[in-house]
Amino acid sequence: MTAELICVGTELLLGDIVNSNAQFLSRELAELGISVLHQHVVGDNAARLRELAAQARARSELLVFSGGLGPTADDLTKETVAAAFGDPLRFDEAQWRRICDFFARMGRTPTANNRKQAMVPTRGHAIQNDHGTAPGAWFEDETGHCAVLLPGVPREMKAMWAEQVRPLLEKRQSCTIRSRTLHVLGGESSIAGKAAPLFEGENPTAAIYCKTGESEIRVTARAADAAAAQAMCDERIERFRAVLGDAAYDTDVPGLAWTVVRALKERGLHAATAESCTGGLVAQRLTEPPGASEVFGYGFVTYAEAAKQALLGVPAELIERYTVYSGPVAAAMARGALAASGAELAVAVTGLAGPGGALPGKPVGTVYLAGADARSRTLYLYRLALGGYREREVIRARAALWALDALRRMALGLAQPDAVRAGFAAPPDALDI
Amino acid sequence: MTAELICVGTELLLGDIVNSNAQFLSRELAELGISVLHQHVVGDNAARLRELAAQARARSELLVFSGGLGPTADDLTKETVAAAFGDPLRFDEAQWRRICDFFARMGRTPTANNRKQAMVPTRGHAIQNDHGTAPGAWFEDETGHCAVLLPGVPREMKAMWAEQVRPLLEKRQSCTIRSRTLHVLGGESSIAGKAAPLFEGENPTAAIYCKTGESEIRVTARAADAAAAQAMCDERIERFRAVLGDAAYDTDVPGLAWTVVRALKERGLHAATAESCTGGLVAQRLTEPPGASEVFGYGFVTYAEAAKQALLGVPAELIERYTVYSGPVAAAMARGALAASGAELAVAVTGLAGPGGALPGKPVGTVYLAGADARSRTLYLYRLALGGYREREVIRARAALWALDALRRMALGLAQPDAVRAGFAAPPDALDI
Repeated sequence: MTAELICVGTELLLGDIVNSNAQFLSRELAELGISVLHQHVVGDNAARLRELAAQARARSELLVFSGGLGPTADDLTKETVAAAFGDPLRFDEAQWRRICDFFARMGRTPTANNRKQAMVPTRGHAIQNDHGTAPGAWFEDETGHCAVLLPGVPREMKAMWAEQVRPLLEKRQSCTIRSRTLHVLGGESSIAGKAAPLFEGENPTAAIYCKTGESEIRVTARAADAAAAQAMCDERIERFRAVLGDAAYDTDVPGLAWTVVRALKERGLHAATAESCTGGLVAQRLTEPPGASEVFGYGFVTYAEAAKQALLGVPAELIERYTVYSGPVAAAMARGALAASGAELAVAVTGLAGPGGALPGKPVGTVYLAGADARSRTLYLYRLALGGYREREVIRARAALWALDALRRMALGLAQPDAVRAGFAAPPDALDI
Repeated sequence: MTAELICVGTELLLGDIVNSNAQFLSRELAELGISVLHQHVVGDNAARLRELAAQARARSELLVFSGGLGPTADDLTKETVAAAFGDPLRFDEAQWRRICDFFARMGRTPTANNRKQAMVPTRGHAIQNDHGTAPGAWFEDETGHCAVLLPGVPREMKAMWAEQVRPLLEKRQSCTIRSRTLHVLGGESSIAGKAAPLFEGENPTAAIYCKTGESEIRVTARAADAAAAQAMCDERIERFRAVLGDAAYDTDVPGLAWTVVRALKERGLHAATAESCTGGLVAQRLTEPPGASEVFGYGFVTYAEAAKQALLGVPAELIERYTVYSGPVAAAMARGALAASGAELAVAVTGLAGPGGALPGKPVGTVYLAGADARSRTLYLYRLALGGYREREVIRARAALWALDALRRMALGLAQPDAVRAGFAAPPDALDI
């Protein structure tokens, strides 16, 4: 099946907002095995909308519209598409009652304009909107070409898509779709280098989405029923895991912090953080998941040298001898955080996020990361070279991600092959990496 | 002038990435007074690209393309548009040298494919790319309709637009454009309520972009020269400021933290943070601006009650009597942060970010914020009701923004009309707001 996307809205033409609806709908259609050949944006203009609807209907089997279903005279999508598909609109009492009920729940009264929103296709059908006032619509012409109309508000559009449109399209495609997302540390090239063949094939499909320092691999399978589709996803995910090892940290989570908090909870562990250049970012990430308070109690943002001494007991001589950006200082921060918090695990970060401040042999982007495990009295020390990422925010975000991963590895007892490992009693020189 | 945007790329049709180029170019064209009537996305497909280029050329005066300028056989934009505009491409030695030099700087060697990128219009001209390999192109037909071709990589596209395309279009529009952005705390409706008339008019234009808890008002003026355009912007910005008062916190900054850090620096002040529900977000924001270390040394993330007692000296009885989400505890946290850091100013945040944990009379979203000023021994206490924003992340982000604003107001000596004000010696009951 071929499809075409038409987003209606002057705010898109003016660049006031980014067209996130187009991305969402395109991805969903791709997962359904429907080829999107065109995306368009037009304003609330009858002539241009009419011309575009006619062109699109002639060349594509499915037209997906978003926007232009509001109550004002400007909102023309439904009327224009009804005319293009030769399906006159009729007033629907049941829809009108739904709209009135919706307004009542919000403590408001519909206006006469809202009656326009209760107009539905005669041959086609309305698409119920449980999240706002404007119902959507489904039109179909004599050649079997269809148009589905959804509101422009992303929240309403996405809910109606998931609840009503996607199931309809799955039925037309005679299939059920399931997706799973594997979360992997590292960028596209490192992942592609190891797992390239697993991205091939039409069903399941696997697509990679890059984020800062990590990637998501979304596996989507089409099958006759949900169990079969799920099994196909699971099988592919396992193959990715086998190749990617413990860089693949979880599936279907909002982010690494969720994995870390769950790992700590399951093992009854607690973590503390000591941060300089990340300025609280590690703690902030770690407290994103609800219930983080069960495993995290103490975070130290020791931006000043005096704070490192006063709160974490980092000796002034250590800073003087090795500089504040150094392995020995990171290690002392991590051990100080353990001592001050009573946690079993701690991570500490100190480094140069830039743009200024470079030292001889320590360019901007040099970040020292220490993990400390009170149970085994072991230190894990990393020296990260993040200068290639240039921007301060990116350097900080990548350093925080490494810190969370060091916590994950300590909590789960995973190897830390990139780290220098030392005991708590190691002399500072051994930590000067 | 009317324009049409054509973005070329399969990754857009698959929904792999959001079309941020379309937003950027649409906004830029709007500021130039050029009406964008259509946006399109097509894949790297010769027939569809040809059909679209012909249609667009017939109806619009300016066509802006992004994407499809790479070295592979798939990359068809330049060849297709050259044919549509009847302007044959020729190999350009100078461009080829630039491409070879660019590769040399990256330590790489161009392939034979890259020669394709040195093809330039015969009647039109190349648009130099100092940020990548693919030069852009400018075509013009006998009717005066133009096409400008830019790479799809946002960084390269934006730089080439700013350096070369925008000045060309300013000349064609016989004007110079200047923009300024006013940063204002609060949402669109509160701002529109006070400043609606200032958003009217064609030159300068004023557009509002909403962010979490704050808004940006972008004022854009067209004039014969830069000084005149700048003066028009300045004048409108001043009128906004006059109406919006100190909710308008700055112009042309990346965010509120930049304003706060500058205010602290200028006055030789230091700030400390004490955070519970925001989990380090206030400290992280405050350390986003380079040079924050001059004004910020100590941040306490006291997520556990024991941490509030141990690090900030909050009495256990206070927590027991008023609960940890309370004005007296927020005040004690702020004063504890002052004592432990030696800073002149501190902010503390404690509250319920949810989703669970509501107490009687304290639903999710109830956040207590305390500012403490050691110079005047004054406390500023806020009780925020952020439950309407529902999501944990939004509640945390809004609470952090309030905290930064409380710091700004203390640093600049501005009124804090929404706060309860008390002296350091006030009894806890007086702080139980």
